[in-house]
Amino acid sequence: MNTTDILVSEVGPRDGLQSVKSIMQTGDKKAWIRSLAGAGIKEIEVGSFVPKTLLPQLADTQEIVEFASQIEHLMVAVLVPNLYGAVAASNAGADKITLPFSVSETHSQANLKRSHEQLFDEVSAIRSHLDSLPPSQRPHFEVSLSTAFGCTLEGAVSESAVTRSAERLMAQGADEVGLSDTTGYATPDQVKRLIQSVRRAVGHDKLTGVHLHNTRGLGLANVLAALEMDITTIDSSMAGIGGCPFAPGASGNIVTEDLVFMLESMGLNTGIDFEKLFESRAILAAALPNEELFGFIPQAGLPLGWVANEY
Amino acid sequence: MNTTDILVSEVGPRDGLQSVKSIMQTGDKKAWIRSLAGAGIKEIEVGSFVPKTLLPQLADTQEIVEFASQIEHLMVAVLVPNLYGAVAASNAGADKITLPFSVSETHSQANLKRSHEQLFDEVSAIRSHLDSLPPSQRPHFEVSLSTAFGCTLEGAVSESAVTRSAERLMAQGADEVGLSDTTGYATPDQVKRLIQSVRRAVGHDKLTGVHLHNTRGLGLANVLAALEMDITTIDSSMAGIGGCPFAPGASGNIVTEDLVFMLESMGLNTGIDFEKLFESRAILAAALPNEELFGFIPQAGLPLGWVANEY
Repeated sequence: MNTTDILVSEVGPRDGLQSVKSIMQTGDKKAWIRSLAGAGIKEIEVGSFVPKTLLPQLADTQEIVEFASQIEHLMVAVLVPNLYGAVAASNAGADKITLPFSVSETHSQANLKRSHEQLFDEVSAIRSHLDSLPPSQRPHFEVSLSTAFGCTLEGAVSESAVTRSAERLMAQGADEVGLSDTTGYATPDQVKRLIQSVRRAVGHDKLTGVHLHNTRGLGLANVLAALEMDITTIDSSMAGIGGCPFAPGASGNIVTEDLVFMLESMGLNTGIDFEKLFESRAILAAALPNEELFGFIPQAGLPLGWVANEY
Repeated sequence: MNTTDILVSEVGPRDGLQSVKSIMQTGDKKAWIRSLAGAGIKEIEVGSFVPKTLLPQLADTQEIVEFASQIEHLMVAVLVPNLYGAVAASNAGADKITLPFSVSETHSQANLKRSHEQLFDEVSAIRSHLDSLPPSQRPHFEVSLSTAFGCTLEGAVSESAVTRSAERLMAQGADEVGLSDTTGYATPDQVKRLIQSVRRAVGHDKLTGVHLHNTRGLGLANVLAALEMDITTIDSSMAGIGGCPFAPGASGNIVTEDLVFMLESMGLNTGIDFEKLFESRAILAAALPNEELFGFIPQAGLPLGWVANEY
């Protein structure tokens, strides 16, 4: 009854909000996150521990993590760029931390101002910190392979570079790796190939999630390809807000509302209630009145007579 | 070198133009169709033989069919609602005629003002006419199963109703049937199931094409599902113009530009040249200055370093 086939990981409060011009008020963020969790979303990336001057939209991350970690049955995920962020995240009560690692070194320098070697060292340092924590306070540690499907600065990114990075990151101490189509270059067959080759290198259970974009319209087709490879965690953003601000020309997260529709229509249980999801969208719309919201399902509506998981 | 893995059937000049408010001038239509064919599109649905009062946008269909049939290597497709249209189409030199048959009888009455039995009779009458023609002048006769994936008036449409309709239409004299997601209700697993069950009923080679919509954002995911079932003809519309004017709330053909990008990125040859395709889009934009044009690839651009079929 309550089992979930696919974990929809909502990244709007982090990936979304960091990319929009408006700054959402802390109270609005809390109301939105509470509403998202109430709609049945089981994992939310709620913020990022980066310098406040860099991303003022996420300056309240500590308060938001502390708030969200009090919500029952919610996995609170946080982006961390370094050890400092990982310490802050674990102190605040995060359940999961994600360090972005750009397979394209050019993008890595532009996005995190770090070389690959520096990031490998950071992974080890973060792992040492995590190992010093009591198990109940230790967040799960994922390293996300950004630009895994191509880079707006370098062009094609070789699959062997992605696989080698994944192996090295696991050796340095990551609990798991993820694949991220930062630039919206991914295509369905590439998604399948890359999942297969990374899993061959690090093990099937060390790659369970993907972060795909809809920049070139292939977002849900790529999700379908990932599902066929037994991927069980899919990132998406309510109303499709966000993307990658450091990848020129690239934008467009997968829209949570459309993703949930596809999954439930295919008989895959997400545990998410559509009516409540639309209420969350209304909270978002009210809190960000000057931002454009996306999504096909919110515009076209659900099919006549549609029932989640039963149609 | 010149083989095509997937036939992209451009429906913009018919399905697209009949749904927009503006009326494209005959000269512009000819320039657009010539340009589309020059970009490598091998099949174009150029018009519809319906009463001119009903669809003034397509009043020049006869002239357009005569024009297009002079273009080398182009399959000229025409929509026909009845025997009268089929005669006009074969007289004008069409290579393919498509009769729409709504599996939802409510939609059939609304769209064509015909019952199923009346349409079965029409199929027989059309077939008799076609059999009276010399082989070189006989167009291929497809019946498209509209609302096959659900109806905005009736809701769910049963798969057995679709399959039974397909069997009967073949028995009445169709050369082939197609599946059409008129309302944008289709989901990937449904696409696979329906293709399989219809083929079981009428034979694998009697269902080679699908017409899918992007109304709920699943257009390309549904294409991917169809490709996995070895479907070889995919309908789409340049800039995504069009949809079904008689299905309230439904709109949004698959965008040709995005479809070609997905196919070529997957190593599937379409024979279509992107640079020339964008030129065709510019002709469309100039001819319909007041209409909204859609598409992710035209907005985001091709990935850096992308080469068709080689990326």
